[in-house]
Amino acid sequence: MRDSLRELTVELGDRSYPIVIGQGLLGSYDLSPFVSGSQVMIVTNETVAPLYLESARACFPGKQVDTVVLPDGEKYKDWQTLNRIFDGLLEKRHSRKTTLVALGGGVVGDMTGFAAASYQRGVSFIQIPTTLLSQVDSSVGGKTGINHPLGKNMIGAFHQPEVVLIDTDSLRSLSPREVSAGLAEVIKYGLIRDTDFLAWLEKEITSLIDLETTALVEAIYRSCACKADVVAKDEREGGLRAILNLGHTFGHAIETFAGYGNWLHGEAVGTGMMMAADLSLRQGMITEEDRARVVRIIERAKLPALAPTGMSPDDFLRLMAVDKKNVDGSLRLVLLRRLGDAVVTDAVDRRELDATLRGFCREV
Amino acid sequence: MRDSLRELTVELGDRSYPIVIGQGLLGSYDLSPFVSGSQVMIVTNETVAPLYLESARACFPGKQVDTVVLPDGEKYKDWQTLNRIFDGLLEKRHSRKTTLVALGGGVVGDMTGFAAASYQRGVSFIQIPTTLLSQVDSSVGGKTGINHPLGKNMIGAFHQPEVVLIDTDSLRSLSPREVSAGLAEVIKYGLIRDTDFLAWLEKEITSLIDLETTALVEAIYRSCACKADVVAKDEREGGLRAILNLGHTFGHAIETFAGYGNWLHGEAVGTGMMMAADLSLRQGMITEEDRARVVRIIERAKLPALAPTGMSPDDFLRLMAVDKKNVDGSLRLVLLRRLGDAVVTDAVDRRELDATLRGFCREV
Repeated sequence: MRDSLRELTVELGDRSYPIVIGQGLLGSYDLSPFVSGSQVMIVTNETVAPLYLESARACFPGKQVDTVVLPDGEKYKDWQTLNRIFDGLLEKRHSRKTTLVALGGGVVGDMTGFAAASYQRGVSFIQIPTTLLSQVDSSVGGKTGINHPLGKNMIGAFHQPEVVLIDTDSLRSLSPREVSAGLAEVIKYGLIRDTDFLAWLEKEITSLIDLETTALVEAIYRSCACKADVVAKDEREGGLRAILNLGHTFGHAIETFAGYGNWLHGEAVGTGMMMAADLSLRQGMITEEDRARVVRIIERAKLPALAPTGMSPDDFLRLMAVDKKNVDGSLRLVLLRRLGDAVVTDAVDRRELDATLRGFCREV
Repeated sequence: MRDSLRELTVELGDRSYPIVIGQGLLGSYDLSPFVSGSQVMIVTNETVAPLYLESARACFPGKQVDTVVLPDGEKYKDWQTLNRIFDGLLEKRHSRKTTLVALGGGVVGDMTGFAAASYQRGVSFIQIPTTLLSQVDSSVGGKTGINHPLGKNMIGAFHQPEVVLIDTDSLRSLSPREVSAGLAEVIKYGLIRDTDFLAWLEKEITSLIDLETTALVEAIYRSCACKADVVAKDEREGGLRAILNLGHTFGHAIETFAGYGNWLHGEAVGTGMMMAADLSLRQGMITEEDRARVVRIIERAKLPALAPTGMSPDDFLRLMAVDKKNVDGSLRLVLLRRLGDAVVTDAVDRRELDATLRGFCREV
């Protein structure tokens, strides 16, 4: 069972932490060495709890383990739901030596991480991501937070976990749509930093959609390693880290337009990356062949190729202006200088941008 | 006017910042060198805004200055009110390069600091404390946060300001009760670290109550220097910093019992310090003469000498158990080993504690 166990370290000085990846870890892997106090609070949601909560409890032998079960969905990534974590911690009298455990997808991870960053001004936390998206993205890098009606992830903190435990078995309970959404972020790493990985993905994409363990462990390991490398070089998003947002400015606009939770984050990012590739071509950075390669791998991952029905170029422009990646109001995007080489730029040609937006909107 | 200008630095490595203390600074001191972006958001409350908001604006020549005016009072130190700061920032499209400015007392400072720590995962902030309490206490050290119905300051962050500007003229609009509450924290520094300062206070307490500028500048400077020294040695409250909580465990119980805002924080701390001195005497740590000296200086500062009407020893025990200074549930208090030498201990004699509680409760 442990033959395929892989481990890497996110190098952040005294905040470094390991990521453990393998099959069959939930219920058998002992996480208690990562818990400094006697109290553990597992935060999960109504969908994940019946599947994995008991197995997750078994990872903390000898500890006081309490639980908070939240409703499931991006639309609950708000202050009211976050407060339920604080309610649970205070009702069970958890001290500042407690450890919070995020068991679930990106929403649970972001909220639990922010709760850990804020409870008594900061306590420890552990990530057990159960979706592909959270395993390859939000579990690495320490970004935590909640949404505000006027923008996604507008309120939050940088807060690093003690350890991340990734069990590929947990992916078997995902819908095909959720698997595809996760693959969007996996593909992203190939596009921004690693053409070898992109080539590997072009061979293995079907195995990944079919959830073959060996391919999954490799894809997750390489994705986490890529993100860990970028985060280690730029923890607070001073520069390099921003390339991880390829497709995200377009994607956030799509998510906001559709209403949080109606499009999966990864779906919006998939379309957003096609848009970024399209604009990169129009601005003379990549070739038509490169663009086609981007579109093809994203389509093979079964991700949507157009913006939501009814969304117009003006909707994009309006919603992108409050994206928090925009410093002082100017539009800043991640584009592809070449395949495997992303760049952050505010040299966006407005006419080419309009052409890209028109190309991806069904109604103009 | 600037003759009495004093300045000190809180030494926290790359998060070090200056505290500037003097008379007549609001409206004339240029704070724009501390603002790295072009946007400033001044957060204040309905009481302070008519008095100082225009002068505060004048400290940021050449910047886009927006404002959020909150209702006044500890009872508004909650998530709903905090959200009004985020609403204002997003409505005015403040980027992650914005600077938040806290103009007001401790509540405004704690909430604005936490908003700055959390907005887009962290932006800059500046403190302009206008009450004596906030000038000598909450403006130094980076503790920020809001209350939860089950406990004070349970949700927050450590977030250091860029600069603290203290104008003693702003104290002229305080009620005598607020001045006394501030003096409780001033006296605390004498009790925990500095008997010379305690002796100076015993001479100058009347000048301070009468708001004489020279005495005020000196008292604020020495208080800030004492706190800055402690915080520099222990930013995240691993050990030493806890001595700053002398009287606070008793005090928080009093504040919670009375309902947030009915007793001023400094009033509760004043009574709490008498209780700590009483227990220190009972546990054989200080002399009867020391205890009397503590009681006398606190009474001369016109602070309450008994717990609120109707509060019982059982109320204290119940409310102190969730105080966040209590690690893993055991009761931990700051006591006086000698005058000018505080110690954190969990060796609290339960019978002596009961005797102290009985001594300060009107009804048993």
